[in-house]
Amino acid sequence: MSHNTFGHLFRVTTWGESHGPAIGCVIDGCPPGIRFTVGDIQAELDRRRPGRSRFVTQRREPDAVKVLSGVLPEEDGETLVTTGTPISMMIENVDQRSKDYREIAERYRPGHADYTYEAKYGLRDYRGGGRSSARETAMRVAAGALARKVVPGLVVRGALVSMGEKEIDRANWDWDFVNDPENPFFTPDPASVPVFTDYLDSIRKAGSSVGAVIEVVAEGVPAGLGAPLYGKLDQDICANLMSINAVKGVEIGNGFQAARIRGEENADEMRAGPEGKPVFLSNNAGGILGGISTGQPVVARFAVKPTSSILTPRRSVDRSGAEVEVVTKGRHDPCVGIRAVPIGEAMVACAIADHYLRHRGQTGRG
Amino acid sequence: MSHNTFGHLFRVTTWGESHGPAIGCVIDGCPPGIRFTVGDIQAELDRRRPGRSRFVTQRREPDAVKVLSGVLPEEDGETLVTTGTPISMMIENVDQRSKDYREIAERYRPGHADYTYEAKYGLRDYRGGGRSSARETAMRVAAGALARKVVPGLVVRGALVSMGEKEIDRANWDWDFVNDPENPFFTPDPASVPVFTDYLDSIRKAGSSVGAVIEVVAEGVPAGLGAPLYGKLDQDICANLMSINAVKGVEIGNGFQAARIRGEENADEMRAGPEGKPVFLSNNAGGILGGISTGQPVVARFAVKPTSSILTPRRSVDRSGAEVEVVTKGRHDPCVGIRAVPIGEAMVACAIADHYLRHRGQTGRG
Amino acid sequence: MSHNTFGHLFRVTTWGESHGPAIGCVIDGCPPGIRFTVGDIQAELDRRRPGRSRFVTQRREPDAVKVLSGVLPEEDGETLVTTGTPISMMIENVDQRSKDYREIAERYRPGHADYTYEAKYGLRDYRGGGRSSARETAMRVAAGALARKVVPGLVVRGALVSMGEKEIDRANWDWDFVNDPENPFFTPDPASVPVFTDYLDSIRKAGSSVGAVIEVVAEGVPAGLGAPLYGKLDQDICANLMSINAVKGVEIGNGFQAARIRGEENADEMRAGPEGKPVFLSNNAGGILGGISTGQPVVARFAVKPTSSILTPRRSVDRSGAEVEVVTKGRHDPCVGIRAVPIGEAMVACAIADHYLRHRGQTGRG
Amino acid sequence: MSHNTFGHLFRVTTWGESHGPAIGCVIDGCPPGIRFTVGDIQAELDRRRPGRSRFVTQRREPDAVKVLSGVLPEEDGETLVTTGTPISMMIENVDQRSKDYREIAERYRPGHADYTYEAKYGLRDYRGGGRSSARETAMRVAAGALARKVVPGLVVRGALVSMGEKEIDRANWDWDFVNDPENPFFTPDPASVPVFTDYLDSIRKAGSSVGAVIEVVAEGVPAGLGAPLYGKLDQDICANLMSINAVKGVEIGNGFQAARIRGEENADEMRAGPEGKPVFLSNNAGGILGGISTGQPVVARFAVKPTSSILTPRRSVDRSGAEVEVVTKGRHDPCVGIRAVPIGEAMVACAIADHYLRHRGQTGRG
Repeated sequence: MSHNTFGHLFRVTTWGESHGPAIGCVIDGCPPGIRFTVGDIQAELDRRRPGRSRFVTQRREPDAVKVLSGVLPEEDGETLVTTGTPISMMIENVDQRSKDYREIAERYRPGHADYTYEAKYGLRDYRGGGRSSARETAMRVAAGALARKVVPGLVVRGALVSMGEKEIDRANWDWDFVNDPENPFFTPDPASVPVFTDYLDSIRKAGSSVGAVIEVVAEGVPAGLGAPLYGKLDQDICANLMSINAVKGVEIGNGFQAARIRGEENADEMRAGPEGKPVFLSNNAGGILGGISTGQPVVARFAVKPTSSILTPRRSVDRSGAEVEVVTKGRHDPCVGIRAVPIGEAMVACAIADHYLRHRGQTGRG
Repeated sequence: MSHNTFGHLFRVTTWGESHGPAIGCVIDGCPPGIRFTVGDIQAELDRRRPGRSRFVTQRREPDAVKVLSGVLPEEDGETLVTTGTPISMMIENVDQRSKDYREIAERYRPGHADYTYEAKYGLRDYRGGGRSSARETAMRVAAGALARKVVPGLVVRGALVSMGEKEIDRANWDWDFVNDPENPFFTPDPASVPVFTDYLDSIRKAGSSVGAVIEVVAEGVPAGLGAPLYGKLDQDICANLMSINAVKGVEIGNGFQAARIRGEENADEMRAGPEGKPVFLSNNAGGILGGISTGQPVVARFAVKPTSSILTPRRSVDRSGAEVEVVTKGRHDPCVGIRAVPIGEAMVACAIADHYLRHRGQTGRG
Repeated sequence: MSHNTFGHLFRVTTWGESHGPAIGCVIDGCPPGIRFTVGDIQAELDRRRPGRSRFVTQRREPDAVKVLSGVLPEEDGETLVTTGTPISMMIENVDQRSKDYREIAERYRPGHADYTYEAKYGLRDYRGGGRSSARETAMRVAAGALARKVVPGLVVRGALVSMGEKEIDRANWDWDFVNDPENPFFTPDPASVPVFTDYLDSIRKAGSSVGAVIEVVAEGVPAGLGAPLYGKLDQDICANLMSINAVKGVEIGNGFQAARIRGEENADEMRAGPEGKPVFLSNNAGGILGGISTGQPVVARFAVKPTSSILTPRRSVDRSGAEVEVVTKGRHDPCVGIRAVPIGEAMVACAIADHYLRHRGQTGRG
Repeated sequence: MSHNTFGHLFRVTTWGESHGPAIGCVIDGCPPGIRFTVGDIQAELDRRRPGRSRFVTQRREPDAVKVLSGVLPEEDGETLVTTGTPISMMIENVDQRSKDYREIAERYRPGHADYTYEAKYGLRDYRGGGRSSARETAMRVAAGALARKVVPGLVVRGALVSMGEKEIDRANWDWDFVNDPENPFFTPDPASVPVFTDYLDSIRKAGSSVGAVIEVVAEGVPAGLGAPLYGKLDQDICANLMSINAVKGVEIGNGFQAARIRGEENADEMRAGPEGKPVFLSNNAGGILGGISTGQPVVARFAVKPTSSILTPRRSVDRSGAEVEVVTKGRHDPCVGIRAVPIGEAMVACAIADHYLRHRGQTGRG
């Protein structure tokens, strides 16, 4: 990863700020001959779109993606085939209200990158969060939609497993429920919906915000992806997830819990399985041993901090060094972690697609 | 990061297995004119050396590092000056007992990478853990010793904050105690020593093992290192830590805790400080906002799983697919996480040195 | 360089085919605080635009570039300031005549990449040259326009020094003449214009084409850019130039001529100059010694082959393996090398800007 | 390529100076399961070893290579099998005579990198050419020896085609003669031996030196390696060759000659061949069209400048800025280009191996 590009063979470069004319990405290295439609990409994008429920901001952004290069249209007028050259995708920003940014331009919002941007660059794009805007994540989701198609049989799904102090009951886990239109939280636990609803309503009324933990599970990952060190599959998944704005922690399999238990509990035992392959009796490793996939589901979790754009006044300073109070008005999700679910899935899918191609390159397998 | 190289401008490539003739690294892109002695590197290496206490294996490995290139000797016969060309360092493996590996060669040890190496490469170096050996980490520490000198004023320190179910009391935190020769655990809490001692003795007697959590704190990191997305400083720190063998989770600042608290608690407030710079009233962010350093201490934590090399018999399969029981005899640390402290420090130092040079490249500052 | 991205710190990614909706590029790593206008970019683009003379194709392509990200507008409404985040530029393709590509789709044109695209990807975008179209070079020129502003005092100029068998007289070299509107060839030798005119008219009438050699000279390159090996400045310049479609050779300084002369003729002698810096008495080295710039002008030359799109019938095969004759109708420049002049300048400027930032990163100088 | 690493999937990092304790390389990404012996590597190294004839320096350097990692020994005690982890190779420097470098340390030798090293780094390793020493090329040859084994059926051969003003007669081309022990020049033309012998004797007696042009031909390159732009196979071959010290120009196929001839002469016609593949009637393209291999032999040429280490006094300055005369005493080849033949082969082999793996990664072919 280097600045705004990630991946080695399946390489994604993203660009754009929320208040410029557009945002976009370039996917380089995609295998040729992959068939998809703009609708496939759009379906993923719609999952993260603001306006899905009363718990995400009500901006009307159609997020209509355009595919500008790297594909040949088939005769049906809908299907696109990748040609192996770079695939450029773009979304125009239609909701750029002219707004008075003067106050934000001068003040460093606590918990935001205002001060650090200035410390780094000597200036910053104060309009709507600049590069750190949640809007940028749309392009990750678009790239992930293609990445999913690179690895045959790959299924990557995510779910919100905790919000603030509230956790789901894993005994109720139901993947089908996660994307149910009645489920505003990507929670896999139907019983958690009323709990999260009440909780988030109270957070919003208090002018506050709350974080979340997201779990992503990738099934259909062939054994052998990754490398023992430095190119570990778990490491690239973690790096991809940490590159998302507001993420403060990442873990694989049982993660931090592994540090609390004993070796004999933690190591996943094996028994003879079909086709001479082992069957694992547990999955504490999260599908990765020594940096390389085992063939079990790959499991990652990441923590999203509560947004710092809140109505509660906070102490800060401005560019002149004077002490000020900051209140962030406007439309803001009380829990930005909800929308992080499809983003996390996309970033995991990109890491796996990249390693699938790298593995095939080095070994000729896959 | 790509396979066995990490960093963009301060680039480290490592090579070697524990049972080959040597291990080594090449550091490319180091600034010219940095003065150091072999003793500086050796001192860091000695901190992770087996034999430091009864809780780490008793192998007699002098770990004597040689510097083979990229330096000019000064007249004192001791000081070396970097020339800007690649610095090669090597440690010969003197403790390669000839040993019967036949049993290991055929069996997949649970929790180890035996099966995944074969799934990936079609063969594996079964001698002593191959590439995934703890021995490889010596070169990370050597590289880190140089990285520390790249950033003026940088101090990177680590400590063990929990071992299995036992945690330190942060109220007792004493950095001076961490490297005390009487402290076999890199714990910052003197009161924890008897607790950890009893705990680890019982673990060892049970033929078991236990994990640990390590915290690394970097002070003297100038504000402005990192980038908003993809080149986030926290992301590269996490990737560096995740690249260490047996690490299963990483977090920055308050990490997963950030997902549990509210926005107004989490965002670090600012007041006017000296030289027009803000003073932060807390450091939940772990010294990084929007991927860019704030000037506060950078704080990272990582979880090390318990070693899977244990005396307790575990169920597994062999290469032929037959079901077997595996018991790992030989010298093994009951808590490999202890030795991870200087390794974690080194990996954080390398990430910061790399970003220091990248920041200077892009902006001319620093 | 990896697929469609080049540069390490000043990184350029390009995308697009001539017959898709648009072409574009993303410039990542550009220093913050650089001021430019869309007009600055457009002026460079206009230099390579078809329609400049009767010797380049008459397509009406306004090539109007849009800057989509990475900049803040200043109050004058025209000046843009780079923010340090990725700069996306795009040109929409307005001249996509619907055309019958069936014949091209089935036949491999000699000298073109038709066969090799299919050998690589299993399919190809047969519309207008696909990715190898000359149109793609517009984005190199756009990126180069920014690269020129990264290095203070840098001036990069190019000129056509031979066309087919005809060479310029270097005694007549006049930089001012190169961009004279009356000069259709970017030749620095006014006396060559009638010669080239007659020559090219005859080539065109014969339904043929001819190649050219371009020389690029960069002045204001500070001493110290580059690296002794692998990161040699001359090597990156050569790679950048070779990445242009139809380029078959590259040389630095006296280039291939160096292989013909003796050591004492070739080595540039030095005398004492101002500020303690040496003055070189000649520039056979082309401003680069041991991969590192000397402070003299950097001189590179590259050879562009004659376009294979000609009216003369050539023997070939089609996708079914049947033998066919191919005649390429339509608008084609008889000497594509002419338009390569601003492209070569841009690629040299990008290489120098990248090394300027890399040098500053490693050494803190510059 | 970045500083001292080249290649994307077959990655080579080299380190070392001629007067340090050793030189070496690390090859990362090599496919697992490749069988070789130290003798295979040594045989290639011996081809470039000083002492081969009276026209190369008489240093006694056994150049004995050691393989330190990344391999498993087979039972025969000789064969090594790559494991897929990094392969470290090293050659100890046994001929480090203690010598008085004071004069060189203070003076900038014309044509050498003395001044530019200081301009870049502020200091330099003045002992024996530092990093730019011809000795470094041994590691390129070692890496190339492995690269040759990565691509099934690949044969890469080089030959010297001109020395100073003297050229071979291509009508006499005999590959078998190139490596004949009686052939001190790697010339493919037996008739050229007496001519080159007399010529080089006169050059040496005059205390002078002369350059050379080397041609490298790779056969057995499958069609489809490379990419249309930026990842062009010809571009990476050129970059690899330009990274060799003293190389000033590179060309592919007919190279600069392509700029002199017409489109219908230049484009290689095709006829139907076996297995539905086209047969090319000529190879002006040098086996590469649109950056992608055609399946024909890949042909590259590069120009090596005459060494600047000559007995003829040349004007220069010293570090204090004073004007001096420089005479380079000691053992120096009158034509360093001779030894560049196996180096050029190795660099071409590395580029092809890297693209073979990249192609396999992206497309699953190969």
